[in-house]
Amino acid sequence: MTIADALRVPPGPVDLSSYDAKGTPGFDGDKDDGKAALAALADPLADLQERLFADGRSGGNRRILLVLQGMDTSGKGGVMRHAVGLFDPQGVHIKAFKAPTDEERGHDFLWRIERELPEVGMIGIFDRSHYEDVLIARVRGLADDAEIERRYDAINTIEKLLGDTGTTVVKCMLHVSAEEQKARLLERLENPEKHWKYNPGDIDERALWPDYEQAYEIALERCNTEAAPWHVVPADRKWYRNWAVAALLHETLASFDLGWPAADFDVATERKRLLEQDV
Amino acid sequence: MTIADALRVPPGPVDLSSYDAKGTPGFDGDKDDGKAALAALADPLADLQERLFADGRSGGNRRILLVLQGMDTSGKGGVMRHAVGLFDPQGVHIKAFKAPTDEERGHDFLWRIERELPEVGMIGIFDRSHYEDVLIARVRGLADDAEIERRYDAINTIEKLLGDTGTTVVKCMLHVSAEEQKARLLERLENPEKHWKYNPGDIDERALWPDYEQAYEIALERCNTEAAPWHVVPADRKWYRNWAVAALLHETLASFDLGWPAADFDVATERKRLLEQDV
Repeated sequence: MTIADALRVPPGPVDLSSYDAKGTPGFDGDKDDGKAALAALADPLADLQERLFADGRSGGNRRILLVLQGMDTSGKGGVMRHAVGLFDPQGVHIKAFKAPTDEERGHDFLWRIERELPEVGMIGIFDRSHYEDVLIARVRGLADDAEIERRYDAINTIEKLLGDTGTTVVKCMLHVSAEEQKARLLERLENPEKHWKYNPGDIDERALWPDYEQAYEIALERCNTEAAPWHVVPADRKWYRNWAVAALLHETLASFDLGWPAADFDVATERKRLLEQDV
Repeated sequence: MTIADALRVPPGPVDLSSYDAKGTPGFDGDKDDGKAALAALADPLADLQERLFADGRSGGNRRILLVLQGMDTSGKGGVMRHAVGLFDPQGVHIKAFKAPTDEERGHDFLWRIERELPEVGMIGIFDRSHYEDVLIARVRGLADDAEIERRYDAINTIEKLLGDTGTTVVKCMLHVSAEEQKARLLERLENPEKHWKYNPGDIDERALWPDYEQAYEIALERCNTEAAPWHVVPADRKWYRNWAVAALLHETLASFDLGWPAADFDVATERKRLLEQDV
């Protein structure tokens, strides 16, 4: 079984309470094994990423867009540091989406998304994404019901277009439990080195936990397409979460089965030019 | 002696032939020592980078802009992979400047530069930069003499403004020898996995080696300011080049002497709110 199979959300209604946030689907081992497995992915990932980059420089249109969603403290930052950090930073484009600016609000919700899509050969990473526009927007009533409904379809449409033009969209919900979130927020409060990460607004959001869970369940059902399926990544164990995202990216890159681009020049001629040059 | 002292270009005329591209200034050891020293910087760099990021999130205006220049094959990409790759990618903004687009040509040469400057708390990396506009522009006659002259002053003006507003500009010329460049181009030709990196135009540029060297010497003299001094990094030894840039960034970050931002909320109150919350 692939890691994608182990994490993919089946079609139909989603009940997050049936997903174990402490689980380690697709991985057989403990924390030390997980850290070793992550480190062992570094070299294969670097090789595959370079092939993707080379392909993009040679006329190919493939690229990856990793969409990371999850409640506060679910570890989007940790995934970035430990999994995305394994790649050559030249081939990675990270965008963290915050509350929309005034300019962004003057456009459709997908406008700011389209401007940050990865170029050919690149791995784009969205830390939060267009899904915020059906998550916090639904929970906080930032858009009316008809507009939220419209957005699910708009998301499916654009994700299909992306797939049709060479972008493999990999969507991960980092699934942390309410208890683990409490422990992580408490740690931020108890460690002065982490105070800067804490925001009193986090507690207000946390009070809406069931509403967010429901909004995720609806989004995971409505936008779980063939072109861009959802994965739920158990996130209570940081080592598993980091490994799982890296392994998913590895599997995706490997599936492209990319060789190295052929020379579009005559090698012997160039060799001669170089060796005869008086520099 | 600091690594900055070891690499800094002294004021006055510059003669690149007096710099040994195989040298290892400021480092006592061989290749294995150099690789170990680079790896040993990973944890301190991560700690210092997080402090910089936290500072930026808490009202500070500090940031770093690393400007990487160098002839083809001098290893800008390698520095990115091995030195910049040590950082948390969330705190890094890399921009590779290519030949200007039509839109960019419709603006002053600094326009596209200003749009890519790092935000507070970030480490910006320029792979090539505004210096191309006094290097290739000079060698290839892409601008007239008066305009090139104007640009040295314009660069000094903007780099001073950057320094005045919290950006520490770290400028590195990766100094590769003509012989080593030949060896590296040859390697690209002889290894089919590297053909995609080779461009016949590289040989045409290489034919202009003395002109480029002179253009660098002038730029390194004219734009070697107190606010933004130049460093020449010997680049014939890849392990030294990677370590030297990482060490320079480490020294720069350490010089900020940043603590952790103080809480702007009452810790006890927040702790109570969290523990009493029924989620």
